[in-house]
Amino acid sequence: MSRPLLAAIACLLVAAPGASVPARADTHPLVIVIHAGAGVPPGLPPAEQAARRQGLAAALDAGYALLDRGGTSLDAVTAAVRTLEDDPQFNAGQGAVLNHEGNAELDAAIMDGNGPRAGAIAGVLHVKNPIELARMVMEKSPHVMLVGDGAEEFALENGVVLVPRSYFRTERREQELEKALRAEKERTKGVSIQAVDPVARYSMGTVGAVALDRAGNLAAATSTGGLTNKARGRVGDSPIIGAGTYANNESCAVSGTGEGEYFIREVVAYDICALVRYRHLPLTAAVHEVIQVKLHQHGGEGGVIAVDPAGNYAMDFNSAGMFRAVRDSRGRRQIGVYQDLQP
Amino acid sequence: MSRPLLAAIACLLVAAPGASVPARADTHPLVIVIHAGAGVPPGLPPAEQAARRQGLAAALDAGYALLDRGGTSLDAVTAAVRTLEDDPQFNAGQGAVLNHEGNAELDAAIMDGNGPRAGAIAGVLHVKNPIELARMVMEKSPHVMLVGDGAEEFALENGVVLVPRSYFRTERREQELEKALRAEKERTKGVSIQAVDPVARYSMGTVGAVALDRAGNLAAATSTGGLTNKARGRVGDSPIIGAGTYANNESCAVSGTGEGEYFIREVVAYDICALVRYRHLPLTAAVHEVIQVKLHQHGGEGGVIAVDPAGNYAMDFNSAGMFRAVRDSRGRRQIGVYQDLQP
Repeated sequence: MSRPLLAAIACLLVAAPGASVPARADTHPLVIVIHAGAGVPPGLPPAEQAARRQGLAAALDAGYALLDRGGTSLDAVTAAVRTLEDDPQFNAGQGAVLNHEGNAELDAAIMDGNGPRAGAIAGVLHVKNPIELARMVMEKSPHVMLVGDGAEEFALENGVVLVPRSYFRTERREQELEKALRAEKERTKGVSIQAVDPVARYSMGTVGAVALDRAGNLAAATSTGGLTNKARGRVGDSPIIGAGTYANNESCAVSGTGEGEYFIREVVAYDICALVRYRHLPLTAAVHEVIQVKLHQHGGEGGVIAVDPAGNYAMDFNSAGMFRAVRDSRGRRQIGVYQDLQP
Repeated sequence: MSRPLLAAIACLLVAAPGASVPARADTHPLVIVIHAGAGVPPGLPPAEQAARRQGLAAALDAGYALLDRGGTSLDAVTAAVRTLEDDPQFNAGQGAVLNHEGNAELDAAIMDGNGPRAGAIAGVLHVKNPIELARMVMEKSPHVMLVGDGAEEFALENGVVLVPRSYFRTERREQELEKALRAEKERTKGVSIQAVDPVARYSMGTVGAVALDRAGNLAAATSTGGLTNKARGRVGDSPIIGAGTYANNESCAVSGTGEGEYFIREVVAYDICALVRYRHLPLTAAVHEVIQVKLHQHGGEGGVIAVDPAGNYAMDFNSAGMFRAVRDSRGRRQIGVYQDLQP
C-alpha cells in the first residue's frame, strides 16, 4: 500500500472516536503519559506484568499529583521519570542495563515546550537520577548537551552526590549481560564486538514521560541505560533532542523507546511534531505515520508516547508491547503492557 | 510581522530568479557546497580573507573532482571536510579551538541520503580526521553515535592511528583560549565556569559539506572543535543528526554552523528538510524560514548550506559572514566570506 494512502487511512481512523480526545475548551486539560520501554518480551508472566503495572502506576500518579496541584508539566515529567529511574524493574537509573564492560552508562534528556529549552546528558556512570542532571544542564548551564566525565564534573559543581558504579549492578542486569556475552562469544568466535549486531538483539528499555499542564505548557523527558552489552560510548536516541525526546508548545511533546539508531536516523520525535505542524495531521495520525509506516518500513522497532496542546495523546508501538500509562483530568487512568489497556 | 506572512514573503522572494536553479533534467546535476563556519569576525583583513578563500577553494575542488569522476556524494563530502580539517585556519581537525582545559575536543557527523545511513562521534581528543571516524561508525558499527573514550577505542579497533593532543595545540588557538580565560576571570570573579555564558562569546567555527552526485544521492558532513573555552564534555549541534547534519534523498542535505545550542533546540537541519517535504517549500525558502525567521526569532546566530535532489542549493546565514563556496556541473564556482560571492 502506498505511504500517502496509509496516512490517509490513519487520518480517517483517528477522526473516529478513540484514544484521541480533541479538546475545544479554553482551559487546558491535564494529561500525563508515561512509558517504560517497548522491549516487552512476549509472554511475560502475569506476576511480572502486575509488578510492572504497579511501578508504572506509582510514576503516573506521582506525576499527575503535581499537575493536579497546579504544578508544571516540567515538574510532572521529572517526577514521573525519577520514580521510574528509582524502580529497578526498568532500564533507567538503578535498573539500567550494563554495557559491554559491565557498567551502567546512562543517557537522559528533558525538554520544556515553553521556550523551548532543553538539557541532555550521555555516557555518565555515577549519577543516580540522570533526568535531574539533564534538567540541571537545561537550567544552569548555557549548553544543551554534556557527555561523559564533563557531565559528571558539571554534576559535582552543582552539588550532585555521585554514586558508585555498584549501585547499578543489580543481579538481574549482571545475569543479562553474562547471557549476552556468552551468546556473542558463540556467534563471533574472535570477531570484534563492533562487527556483531547487538542493536536488535537484547533488551530495549527506556523510560519516559510527556505532559500538558494547566498553563498549556508541554514537556518531555526520557532516561535510559541503553542496550545490554552496548559498546562503551554508544549514545542512543534518548538524549538526542529531536530523536528520542522533543517538546514544543506549538506542536507536541514526544518521548521514544526502541532501537535508538533508527530513531536517530529518522529524527522520530521531531518528525511527529513536524507532521502535526506542517501537514496538520492529528497527533495520533502523525504518530501512526512515523511509527507504523516510516519506522516499520526502515525495519525499526519501538514506540512513542506523545501529547499535544489540546490534550490529545498517543501511545503507539510496532513491537510486541510497550509498558505505558496515561492519566488525565477527564478521568482517564489506563495502564497497558501488550495491546490491552486496563484501569 | 507574523511568521506565516514572513514565510509567504520568503516564498515569493525565492520564486524570483536567484541562487536557486530549479533542475528539470532527467540526469542529476553535480553540486557540492561547503562552509567553514559562520563565525566570521567583521572586518577580516584582505590577506586573511584571501587565505581562507584559498583553503575553501582547495576543499571545494577536492570534493568536486570526485563528483566529476563519477564518485559518490559521500566520498565528495568526506574529501572536502577532510581537506578543511587538515587546514589549520579552520575550526575542525588540526585547527580546532581549545576547550576550557586546553584540549581540542572534536565532534563530527556524516549522513548518506541513500538509506539513509548516519555516523557521528563526539568528544574525541586524539583523532586527526574526525569525519573519517564518523564515517567508520556509519559503515562498520551497528551504532550511529559513539562518544569519548568509547569512540577512540572503536577507532583503534579499526586501525586508526591516534595523534597526541599537542597536534591540535596551534599557537593561534592557544592565544585565543588565553584571551577567553582572561576575559572570563574578569567577568566572573570566582563564579563557576558553568554560570558564565560562553556560547555567544567566542569563535563560531565549524566546517561542513553537502553534495549531490550523478546517481542522485545526497550526502552531508560536518566537523568541528566547537567553542573556544567550552566546558569539557559539551556537545554542540554538529554531531547531532537532525540538528547540525542531515541528509535524505527524499528531501535535502544540510550542514550547519553557528550557536550549536540553538541549532539543537530548533532541530535546524531536519526542520529545513521537513519544510521541503511537508510544506513543499523550495529549498531556499525553507532555509530562509529556518535561518532568517525562526533561528533569528530565538536569538540564534549561524548559517547553513543545503542541496536538494534537483541540484538547487542554498548558502544562508544571519551572522556577519560565512566562509562558503559552491561548485556545480552548470559551470558555477563561487566563494564567499561576507555577503558577496566571487568566482
